[in-house]
Amino acid sequence: MTTYQAYFSKTDHKRILPPSWGHGPFPAKLEQNLALLDPNHMITMGSGTPNKDFFSVKNITVNHSIDLHYQKDAKDSHINSFYIGEKVKQSDVQKADSKIEELFEYADNTFGSYSTIDLVKKLTKKFEIFKDYKSNNFSEEDYDYCVTSGTSASSYYLCQLLLDDTKTILVEELTFTVIMGNVSMTGANVVPFNVNLNANDENGENPIDTKYLENLLKNWSTIHPKKPFPLVFYTIPVQNPTGLVQKIQHKREIYDILKKYKILVMEDDPYGYLTLTDDLKSNCDFNDKASFESQKQIYFSALKKTGSYLSIDTEGLVIRCESFSKIFGTGLRLGFIIGPKKIIDRVKNYIECSTREISGLSMTVFNQCCQGMDKLLCQNLKTNDIEQLDGWVQWCINLCVLHRHKQKVLYKELTENPVYASKRLFTCIKPTFGMFLFIGLNLNEFKSEALKSPQALTEAMQYMDYKLLENNLDAIIGTRLIVDINHSFKKSGFIRVTTSQIKNDKELAEAARRICTSIEQFFDEYLTKKQPYPVLL
Amino acid sequence: MTTYQAYFSKTDHKRILPPSWGHGPFPAKLEQNLALLDPNHMITMGSGTPNKDFFSVKNITVNHSIDLHYQKDAKDSHINSFYIGEKVKQSDVQKADSKIEELFEYADNTFGSYSTIDLVKKLTKKFEIFKDYKSNNFSEEDYDYCVTSGTSASSYYLCQLLLDDTKTILVEELTFTVIMGNVSMTGANVVPFNVNLNANDENGENPIDTKYLENLLKNWSTIHPKKPFPLVFYTIPVQNPTGLVQKIQHKREIYDILKKYKILVMEDDPYGYLTLTDDLKSNCDFNDKASFESQKQIYFSALKKTGSYLSIDTEGLVIRCESFSKIFGTGLRLGFIIGPKKIIDRVKNYIECSTREISGLSMTVFNQCCQGMDKLLCQNLKTNDIEQLDGWVQWCINLCVLHRHKQKVLYKELTENPVYASKRLFTCIKPTFGMFLFIGLNLNEFKSEALKSPQALTEAMQYMDYKLLENNLDAIIGTRLIVDINHSFKKSGFIRVTTSQIKNDKELAEAARRICTSIEQFFDEYLTKKQPYPVLL
Repeated sequence: MTTYQAYFSKTDHKRILPPSWGHGPFPAKLEQNLALLDPNHMITMGSGTPNKDFFSVKNITVNHSIDLHYQKDAKDSHINSFYIGEKVKQSDVQKADSKIEELFEYADNTFGSYSTIDLVKKLTKKFEIFKDYKSNNFSEEDYDYCVTSGTSASSYYLCQLLLDDTKTILVEELTFTVIMGNVSMTGANVVPFNVNLNANDENGENPIDTKYLENLLKNWSTIHPKKPFPLVFYTIPVQNPTGLVQKIQHKREIYDILKKYKILVMEDDPYGYLTLTDDLKSNCDFNDKASFESQKQIYFSALKKTGSYLSIDTEGLVIRCESFSKIFGTGLRLGFIIGPKKIIDRVKNYIECSTREISGLSMTVFNQCCQGMDKLLCQNLKTNDIEQLDGWVQWCINLCVLHRHKQKVLYKELTENPVYASKRLFTCIKPTFGMFLFIGLNLNEFKSEALKSPQALTEAMQYMDYKLLENNLDAIIGTRLIVDINHSFKKSGFIRVTTSQIKNDKELAEAARRICTSIEQFFDEYLTKKQPYPVLL
Repeated sequence: MTTYQAYFSKTDHKRILPPSWGHGPFPAKLEQNLALLDPNHMITMGSGTPNKDFFSVKNITVNHSIDLHYQKDAKDSHINSFYIGEKVKQSDVQKADSKIEELFEYADNTFGSYSTIDLVKKLTKKFEIFKDYKSNNFSEEDYDYCVTSGTSASSYYLCQLLLDDTKTILVEELTFTVIMGNVSMTGANVVPFNVNLNANDENGENPIDTKYLENLLKNWSTIHPKKPFPLVFYTIPVQNPTGLVQKIQHKREIYDILKKYKILVMEDDPYGYLTLTDDLKSNCDFNDKASFESQKQIYFSALKKTGSYLSIDTEGLVIRCESFSKIFGTGLRLGFIIGPKKIIDRVKNYIECSTREISGLSMTVFNQCCQGMDKLLCQNLKTNDIEQLDGWVQWCINLCVLHRHKQKVLYKELTENPVYASKRLFTCIKPTFGMFLFIGLNLNEFKSEALKSPQALTEAMQYMDYKLLENNLDAIIGTRLIVDINHSFKKSGFIRVTTSQIKNDKELAEAARRICTSIEQFFDEYLTKKQPYPVLL
């Protein structure tokens, strides 16, 4: 039997994930060069998964048995004990208030255990996600919560719920392309909307081109005569890949446009808690409550500048996806959705009818770690007088400070390098939130042939990727982070890097050096006689 | 905004899960009666989730911190330690060979970490799933493996892959109805095939009515003129709900029929490792290798009598779903699929494009526990001379012996009760595998009105459920475990019970008493003047 095509669903061919983290194809000569590199010395700046410096959990110890003691005392068991992680000196091990059934039996709900949903609600309240919320049409009580196995799952479910081949979704022209896979399998249309790469903290411009958006919707039937009017707007408000941030006033501008057309907002916000504000102190090892409280206020006020679409949703149009991937651990597969009850009901139904997949072990360990963080903070501050989940706040602040440090070092190293400082071969968007740094190539000035056509740009960026790889550095090129090359090729001449896998300042400096070298080589060689091999697509 | 219907996918209404574990609706008087019962004294025989007597893991201890020590020694951290489960005396805690990144970073594959896939392959080899396999058309190497978050996820993915509104799937008329939800959302047709409730160990009959199946396929276009010819056959070979077991010769008979039509077999086998054979010794606390080896041979030979469709698949038509839910812990959400490479490739693609959900924590803890079981067995047997994963085999044997004990006690208590022994109001299928016990009501003889029509049967079984609930016992009635009431109403007068949540022999005896009382009350009251309230549907 050579093929099973006849057995497959007629929509199976639509299940395609654009491989943003892929590389190649490679010409033979480059393959040879790459084979000579030491994989242990590769610097990974492609994947946003935090490395173990960012784990709260240092050690998990498991005590288990092969004995069963029905009607006997289970304590008779022979126990085998192993640990994963660092060897730690345990003292004063406290019994958690979760039962072992929460780890190993079905959760009370397929859409999240009650205790996890409760935790998620408390976090939402603590971070005042709904703070500015006022509406007579739709009240905070009209929203509901649903735990998922992370934002990949959340956006998959939401696309399954909200899209089909008679629907259209709007997506930022530069984006995390997993959403494209989610959309593609529903058969829906994707239409990109423009980002504004000129936006920054100083000029206060909206990182979404609202004029473009307004015009697009107003003249939809002329611009896209064959596509249904969009009912969903997907956005990553701490933008991936640009790192640009929608402040709350920008969100208002966008919401006001969408509201007129009753378009749902799907807010995918995995980086929303990672502010890089300079106002936070570098040394977070506080031992008094006043210092903590002051940092907490600084942190909360930094977050409030961006806020959530939920806080301005007067019409019940917003669905927010959060994830603990970037702030606790990607491997847990844990996140949640907040949205209008009637939408969440259908998401819950989808989970119930489909994978029912959320790990009880993941939920419960996360849950208990959140509680444990309060104990750790109490120890640090030498008081029991803290608010519930302040430990989690301290944890988030610590993450921010570490991310800020790494981003700053990288930014400094990049911008002090002559390739930037004197040759001006690239620009950087200075990151203020999140974990990405956007490096725009100065093609316009120094390699304008690359901007002639989508094809020319794609080839140029493929060559850029070759250079990065030859310098033993893994990053993501712009052409792999876009919705439509024809729409966005003039904005696709960039590299997205992240510091989350980088171990220390020395490696950051080395990373910057390799990036600059690669860029220099690109401009020096590409489309000249020096180019040693052709570009393959 | 009162409804979001306009936003929903046009297929959302097809996402319906038949609620096999639900109850009601209830008449008011019954509601009042039920409200008086003590929920703490309810006996749960509905859910097949094993209780904590069946957990290998007794304690998980987590050591975590809110400190981040980039560039510093992480051992400086303040550590908080908590445990979930029993307090155990740990000694000699060994470092596992998994890194903490396996718990908290993305797995190397969205379809299972390499180490888990490797484990699953070793288990398959150990249990000789492919043992009898011989074919020139299709070799063992043409199959592939894919880890999932359990069989719910596996069957969801497979239905998404193999079905659409132009397809038909064959399903046992009595079944675990989650599959119905999976099928429904694809828009495919379901056609039931008949089970043979007369099959038993003594007469050796096939629990699938093969004559019926053969005729159905042969005369498909006359029997189902409007439905496409089926391309998939879904079966639970240790049948849920009947507990009937397809021996390997039965599987051959069925396979030979399906092969002619190139119909895929989807083998859903969560109970395949739970033999209740009397040949296994009751006391499993061996301390010598010879005893273990002898038990292992008995166990393997019991399993071999049933085998897998994979072992007879000469044409590459079989897809096997396994789950660790029933043999390690449901809450982990862990299972796997074995099938033709070209099918598994598309399942992997589906996971990649959709939820990417498998918990690294679940995979790694399971993985390490399997390895740890070898250590425990070595301790028990006072030798290091065991084969890899023999510990897991010992664990499975222990589970079998405990399940066997519980099933035997229940069966004995039920069949010694006068409601069975002298009044003959019900029959039982004596379980030889798995965790379900099938109780058939003797409607034909004592309440034949109930067999007059699908409606009459549905009402009768609803009343049966009322009686069970009034006796503070939760079980599942037959009408909630069928594909099509019109097709199967004469076989739907049964109750499915499981002992997996029951704590001890005393509770088993009490459970049997309550079941018998309920059945007696049913026959005594239903459709007579004694019936205190009407049936609501």
